[in-house]
Amino acid sequence: MAKVKKAKPKAKKTKKKTAGARKSKVRLRSKKAVAPATAESMAAKQRSISVSEFFAKNRHLLGFDNPRKALLTAVKEAVDNSLDACEEAQILPDLLISIRALDDSKFVLTVKDNGPGIVKSQIPNIFARLLYGSKFHTLKMSRGQQGIGISAAGMYGLLTSGEPVQIISRTNPKKKAHHYHVQIDTVKNRPEIVLDEECDFDLPAGTCVTITLEGKYQKGRQSVDEYIAQTAMANPHATIRYNAPDGNNYEYPRQTENVPRVPIEIKPHPYGIELGVLFKMARESSAKKLAPFLKNEFSRVTPRVAGEICHKAKLRETLRTSSITLQQVEKLHAAINQTRIMAPATDCIAPVGAEQLEAGLARVVEADFYTAYSRSPSVYRGNPFLVEAALAYGIKTNGSSETNKEPLMRLIRIANRAPLLYQQSACAIYKAIMDINWRNYALSQSRGALPTGPVMVMVHIASVWVPFTSESKEAIAHYPEIIKEIQLALQQCGRRLGIYLRKKKRIQQEMDKRRYIEIYLPYIGEALQEILTLRKSQVDTVVSKLKRILERSRKI
Amino acid sequence: MAKVKKAKPKAKKTKKKTAGARKSKVRLRSKKAVAPATAESMAAKQRSISVSEFFAKNRHLLGFDNPRKALLTAVKEAVDNSLDACEEAQILPDLLISIRALDDSKFVLTVKDNGPGIVKSQIPNIFARLLYGSKFHTLKMSRGQQGIGISAAGMYGLLTSGEPVQIISRTNPKKKAHHYHVQIDTVKNRPEIVLDEECDFDLPAGTCVTITLEGKYQKGRQSVDEYIAQTAMANPHATIRYNAPDGNNYEYPRQTENVPRVPIEIKPHPYGIELGVLFKMARESSAKKLAPFLKNEFSRVTPRVAGEICHKAKLRETLRTSSITLQQVEKLHAAINQTRIMAPATDCIAPVGAEQLEAGLARVVEADFYTAYSRSPSVYRGNPFLVEAALAYGIKTNGSSETNKEPLMRLIRIANRAPLLYQQSACAIYKAIMDINWRNYALSQSRGALPTGPVMVMVHIASVWVPFTSESKEAIAHYPEIIKEIQLALQQCGRRLGIYLRKKKRIQQEMDKRRYIEIYLPYIGEALQEILTLRKSQVDTVVSKLKRILERSRKI
Repeated sequence: MAKVKKAKPKAKKTKKKTAGARKSKVRLRSKKAVAPATAESMAAKQRSISVSEFFAKNRHLLGFDNPRKALLTAVKEAVDNSLDACEEAQILPDLLISIRALDDSKFVLTVKDNGPGIVKSQIPNIFARLLYGSKFHTLKMSRGQQGIGISAAGMYGLLTSGEPVQIISRTNPKKKAHHYHVQIDTVKNRPEIVLDEECDFDLPAGTCVTITLEGKYQKGRQSVDEYIAQTAMANPHATIRYNAPDGNNYEYPRQTENVPRVPIEIKPHPYGIELGVLFKMARESSAKKLAPFLKNEFSRVTPRVAGEICHKAKLRETLRTSSITLQQVEKLHAAINQTRIMAPATDCIAPVGAEQLEAGLARVVEADFYTAYSRSPSVYRGNPFLVEAALAYGIKTNGSSETNKEPLMRLIRIANRAPLLYQQSACAIYKAIMDINWRNYALSQSRGALPTGPVMVMVHIASVWVPFTSESKEAIAHYPEIIKEIQLALQQCGRRLGIYLRKKKRIQQEMDKRRYIEIYLPYIGEALQEILTLRKSQVDTVVSKLKRILERSRKI
Repeated sequence: MAKVKKAKPKAKKTKKKTAGARKSKVRLRSKKAVAPATAESMAAKQRSISVSEFFAKNRHLLGFDNPRKALLTAVKEAVDNSLDACEEAQILPDLLISIRALDDSKFVLTVKDNGPGIVKSQIPNIFARLLYGSKFHTLKMSRGQQGIGISAAGMYGLLTSGEPVQIISRTNPKKKAHHYHVQIDTVKNRPEIVLDEECDFDLPAGTCVTITLEGKYQKGRQSVDEYIAQTAMANPHATIRYNAPDGNNYEYPRQTENVPRVPIEIKPHPYGIELGVLFKMARESSAKKLAPFLKNEFSRVTPRVAGEICHKAKLRETLRTSSITLQQVEKLHAAINQTRIMAPATDCIAPVGAEQLEAGLARVVEADFYTAYSRSPSVYRGNPFLVEAALAYGIKTNGSSETNKEPLMRLIRIANRAPLLYQQSACAIYKAIMDINWRNYALSQSRGALPTGPVMVMVHIASVWVPFTSESKEAIAHYPEIIKEIQLALQQCGRRLGIYLRKKKRIQQEMDKRRYIEIYLPYIGEALQEILTLRKSQVDTVVSKLKRILERSRKI
């Protein structure tokens, strides 16, 4: 009911606007040409845009550009939130994902977790307000970061089905759970509460989100099924049950009992910080003087380093930051990049680890050869990040379509333990792979295409701030530092693959050679017998000696 | 000065926050593990995020992920604004783009136009506030649409150089021009005015924007130079002068004197409108009753069509829209898609036109064969759009790197007359090309790669709302309807190419055959002479006859 009341005043507002607009439009239509605009007429049209109006109109930015992808994105956002919540609260996640088909283009998605639950007062904002969250203002590794995901999924649901988001959440076994129906008011970017009641919940604590949305369920690559399988792989500590729309039920029991340690929140690393940002930070810093400012606001800046920077910049350590000038900051900026500063703390990033990555890959595909490599952390724009890569060769293609011709390299991309399924070719990982000459590693590759062969590559990027190319978090932006790290990790795997493949080839040749020896030795024996008129026994000894020598002469 | 005053209170605010944060962090560091979060502790961290904080941290979404691209993006945004303004005011654009290098990583970009100018009061918002503009709330073909571009460029400039944006604008030859220095307050997403004065301007009306930013100037593909060249090509009505950082000056005089007609603003087409959107529109419509609502709020809905829809939906034409239920809207939604409705008005889109497109392509590359094709408008999600494609074959590669092996197909992507240089492989145009089997058109293509050959393809998408994959407007989202249209346009060009190439091949063979005839006829003549003992003259006549017959027997 509240909704209708709210709607009224808006109706009036829009009335005035559209009325005006319509009159002018009628005029246009009449004489198929538009009066040239003036600075004044343009000024009259200038308006501010609410962030949810923006994303409602640009929903493809959020990963809702087609029904199949929309369904996946909604699942992804809900699952990310659940896993993040459990991790923060150090709970072993138990997820139940259920997708029910109302008809072939409309689905009810429910994701239920055993997390800490959400405080009542926050529920509406978290699920029906864009750019609202707990992770944006921190530098800390997590799946969600923007404060857009789940509320965007809810908004898409509302736009395509008209149904509000339903949330049941319980934070305390002693209290009852809260049951909310909320929907976003796109003009204001604020939540509207449609229903608010207490209810029962079968878990002591946890959250259950239900979104009704237009979508398309389809198996195969980029499917919800594959996404969930990869998620299970990247999160061995989680138990995930999944009821698919086609009636199939999947269960992925947890592989390990230990929760990934809570990533530590850090301050930015001085390297890669931009001039203007540094200027703003200094001006607004709570530390009155320059040296303490550097020490407090950045990671890895000891008093000694701070002093060194000030010295290099020819600035007093006691310079008042609130009145620092742009010129001074320019000097400071230059000085920072001339000073050797320790690499960023790694404990803010929780890598999966080379072994687990390799094991994970082994769980997905059966292959002859596996290798994995984990780089040490690096920095882009002041943000620490870490790249891990795993490679599998000799994959058994279980009767796939590409039986006759060599398949292209298959790619699994993971960012902060969340698999990326779309926009592969827009991703820094893809670019890194394309820029490597895989022929060096005994793979064939035609120009402008992925290398071919029964090979699968998995790359995981862990960072306190993964730079995605769009809010839909499908591909990683082309930061040169990141691409470089990916290449170094992949080349390491590539070299090992090359060694393996070349050795394999050599062994093959050896086998052939050995076969020849076996075939021809007897004849040689006979020949010797005739030439030297030896006795059978002598011949056998000679032959066996000969054989041993020939085999020893080979080095494998 | 204003800036410093503003800074103060913020400083205090942040102080409290960071202080709290730091304490907790210190604790973490001490015992390298984090206390598990609780629903309450998480709730405490929940905050809303300002849209400019969001984009400052995600500047790669806006096309500022590396210095080279950043420079291009800044130019692009400024140029788009200038061209749009001139078009709206029906002025033949005269643009001056100048990029001055302060050092090899810092540039001063100035873009000056002869447009209508900007009203004083609007300048700060337009240049130093995100999500503020005149085009977002209208359905109308224009380069800019989001209300982000130029303010984002200004923000990037501020972040990387600390310098505010400088604007000089004059709206009236009788008045003086206004000179502003403005910068964005990212926490509030509001402009801060650093300088505000009157000044002289050498044009009766126009705008001049200057941004100081970190960048990288580099020639070749994806360079500012190429962008400007393509812009000139896609906008034959504009004169563009460009002073490059390397001291070179380019001038692109206008090719035509007639301004593209002002695109007309339209209402959404009923096809592709989503259920929830329809629901919201109905609830908030100024038209009290159902039939008038449909007639007024949508394009191409005549009273008859409105009636038909209501009838199909089994709803009264006089139903009060303010109290319409979701169930009723569902029926309405279904009925709309069952009703035949005229295609959207085309006068809201100004295509370049097949001929001009072909001519444009001819200006860029010299080739043996050109063709172009312009589709009729179509609709995605209620937005009309139109696809045009041009193709050139037999390009003269002026000593490019790929001399030995066949080059990959070259691609020029244009959206609403603005060239797209980055993220080619993420673009719907790229996908459309990859999904076509170019072997059918006598081009060779290896799997997972663009076709090869001396061929260039240009695709232009004109729409009242181009769905870009990111705010940086570099690639078009994968809407199935759009991909389909692109393919149809390209296949048309492809068929013509196929015909041309096959004919060319046949002619080649003919030529060979003819040469054979010329070579062997004389001998045949001699043979005949011997066999039939003819006179020289007879032989000649026979031979010439024979030749004529043989040539006639060939069908070219």
